[in-house]
Amino acid sequence: MNYLNLSAEELLAEKEKCSKELQQISEKNLHLDLSRGKPSKEQLDLSLNMLDVINCNTLFDSESGMDCRNYGGLDGIPEAKQLMANVMNVHADNVIMGGNSSLTLMYQLVSHGMTEGICGNKPWYEVKDRKFLCPVPGYDRHFAITEHFGFELIPIAMNEDGPDMDSVEKYIADESVKGIWCVPKYQNPTGVVYSDEVVRRFANLKPAAKDFRIFWDNAYCVHDFTDEYIAIPDIITECSLAGNPDLVYEFASTSKITFPGAGISAIATSPANLIDIKSFLKYATIGPDKLNQLMHARYFKNMGGIKKHMKKHADIMRPKFEAAYDILSKELSDLNIASWSKAIGGYFFSFVTLPGCATKIVEMCKEAGVVFTPAGATHPKGYNKDDNDIRIAPSFATESEITSAIYILSLCTKLASIDYLLKK
Amino acid sequence: MNYLNLSAEELLAEKEKCSKELQQISEKNLHLDLSRGKPSKEQLDLSLNMLDVINCNTLFDSESGMDCRNYGGLDGIPEAKQLMANVMNVHADNVIMGGNSSLTLMYQLVSHGMTEGICGNKPWYEVKDRKFLCPVPGYDRHFAITEHFGFELIPIAMNEDGPDMDSVEKYIADESVKGIWCVPKYQNPTGVVYSDEVVRRFANLKPAAKDFRIFWDNAYCVHDFTDEYIAIPDIITECSLAGNPDLVYEFASTSKITFPGAGISAIATSPANLIDIKSFLKYATIGPDKLNQLMHARYFKNMGGIKKHMKKHADIMRPKFEAAYDILSKELSDLNIASWSKAIGGYFFSFVTLPGCATKIVEMCKEAGVVFTPAGATHPKGYNKDDNDIRIAPSFATESEITSAIYILSLCTKLASIDYLLKK
Repeated sequence: MNYLNLSAEELLAEKEKCSKELQQISEKNLHLDLSRGKPSKEQLDLSLNMLDVINCNTLFDSESGMDCRNYGGLDGIPEAKQLMANVMNVHADNVIMGGNSSLTLMYQLVSHGMTEGICGNKPWYEVKDRKFLCPVPGYDRHFAITEHFGFELIPIAMNEDGPDMDSVEKYIADESVKGIWCVPKYQNPTGVVYSDEVVRRFANLKPAAKDFRIFWDNAYCVHDFTDEYIAIPDIITECSLAGNPDLVYEFASTSKITFPGAGISAIATSPANLIDIKSFLKYATIGPDKLNQLMHARYFKNMGGIKKHMKKHADIMRPKFEAAYDILSKELSDLNIASWSKAIGGYFFSFVTLPGCATKIVEMCKEAGVVFTPAGATHPKGYNKDDNDIRIAPSFATESEITSAIYILSLCTKLASIDYLLKK
Repeated sequence: MNYLNLSAEELLAEKEKCSKELQQISEKNLHLDLSRGKPSKEQLDLSLNMLDVINCNTLFDSESGMDCRNYGGLDGIPEAKQLMANVMNVHADNVIMGGNSSLTLMYQLVSHGMTEGICGNKPWYEVKDRKFLCPVPGYDRHFAITEHFGFELIPIAMNEDGPDMDSVEKYIADESVKGIWCVPKYQNPTGVVYSDEVVRRFANLKPAAKDFRIFWDNAYCVHDFTDEYIAIPDIITECSLAGNPDLVYEFASTSKITFPGAGISAIATSPANLIDIKSFLKYATIGPDKLNQLMHARYFKNMGGIKKHMKKHADIMRPKFEAAYDILSKELSDLNIASWSKAIGGYFFSFVTLPGCATKIVEMCKEAGVVFTPAGATHPKGYNKDDNDIRIAPSFATESEITSAIYILSLCTKLASIDYLLKK
């Protein structure tokens, strides 16, 4: 059945049927939540043994000889740098460790740009028409940082292989454009993996602003669902090869490897950027928690340890995403009223509706007991002019909850689409 | 013997004797370091058992029911707030938890003042002649934060009961004066404890600038060497009673209770300031490490746990300070060429020389194998126009190292003072 070919009568009959079913479901008083990209308890339990690595009998000396319990070490201990370098597939010399949140590193860098300026350039505070590029749909907390600091946010369309690079290349000719938010692998929320060509076009950008920076948030770099490790080109090396070594800040953390909010984070970038970052970090901190770094480094040992661990995450996540795709495929695939990205890693996928329907669908789902991320939340200032996409976050719920929730999403999508088609 | 009454010949004879002795000591190739306020390994070992509180069998739910391993909780878990409230002697409702460093909280607040403005006031970035008051001698990392953000640093004399309040009250009539750095108990480096009167004069300040804030770094609030707990009035309550609830930010951490760089920190302030702080924190972080908060809260349980633990620190620290005072008293007390504060808590005391002698004494000590904090480091921009004080940090060294180091300090002080008196 293709909804677009149905007569008004047929649509009304379909509406009647779906409404009844939704009514019955609503009476069950469900409370389901697919709104947040939180790991499930089962995933948190995967890292339980890490907590036994540090105890009262531990040798607290890092490889550098430093007692990890005491002061010292602005940029982190060597074994933690090496671990995060492996995770990002970069050289450890390019790495500075952060605290429990890579988001804080991003905030600090934008804040640094505001008050001191990036690498000696004019502080962004004084660039009154400052702008930042935001691939949409994207991560609301990225956009919020730059909005907070008074940037005009410019939406860039997301294609199936990454941001629309023609558009990026056009905008960076403007010197007031100071950066772009990127999640290169399993992008939040589309699940898109940037193609090699897109990565290389990023590395070869020639922005008008010397202090333009790519904020390359590689949050899901080892978060593959398949047995295959999906590799994208190392942006640090690519930028260096392209003669643009200072163009990029890469970020990663163990928030979704071990514990959200109690992991370790890191930034990888060029030597000149590292010097610039330390120039303000030395005032901002006495250095990140080295005991937590030591615990992570000793637990995982090397990239083999990370990969083995991430396979366990994959075995929990894959069936949840597949359950969602199965229902969507069964309920919606022929109707021509919705499409969805099929992420094979990360934490999210995107559900694309007919224009103007997303907000209504999210509201209807909420009334039926299922919470999704507010429609538009993945767009700058929460506003999607097409009102046509919904972020789906299956990680925290159980498989059976996901099945119920996505079935309700399908029903509500049918109903909202019928109304849309009837008005058309 | 009073050096001030000696003839030139007598001084020269004394110089000859001291020089010979210093020469002999130099040949021992000592390497002693009394420059940094780092806890000793013995002190770090006091908290070893805390590390057994969290392991693979832990119940990770906080009192609020939140799983401390997952996302959530911008301002910290209730039991950690309560612990830090007890440490600061304030109400838990006034507390927000920070990460592993209270210095970062201070940096973030000044940075917030720069870009967004404190409580909606004009961002300090736009106050071109912005100034900050700095009691001297004081903590170099405090001064460095405000210097980094372009403040003019105004030195305020430290008296035996705290900063010179007449001077503070004079300067705050200037609207461009935006704050003051305070360490109210066992001040770094003098060891001075602010008197009740000084605390109350602070609470009753009527600064011209609405966004003037007292940065009340209560770093050594429970770091008494004596059995008696030295209490100073609670500045949060005093400010509230004085009708100035928003005047102060109070800071504390467990850096010198458990592990430097791997502890927990907190800020206590008024409800209006808490709202203002959360207004930027929500962009800057996903919240501090809750597992570390849980570990600290469960280990110490309550203020009784803290006090019992701090007594063990005191038993390690007291003899070190006393060893230093003993040597100074024996070697220098009658000579009239130096004085020193007798801190009975905290991490430092001040050694005051004849004018123009401090830099020379530190250099001579260094040549003889003993490192002290550079003279002047405790003054804004590292410049002490009188060149007459040296910060002594006995915590990290052993008692016998301290005895040797302070003996050498005494010798070098004699020699530098003799040169000063001969030239006079």
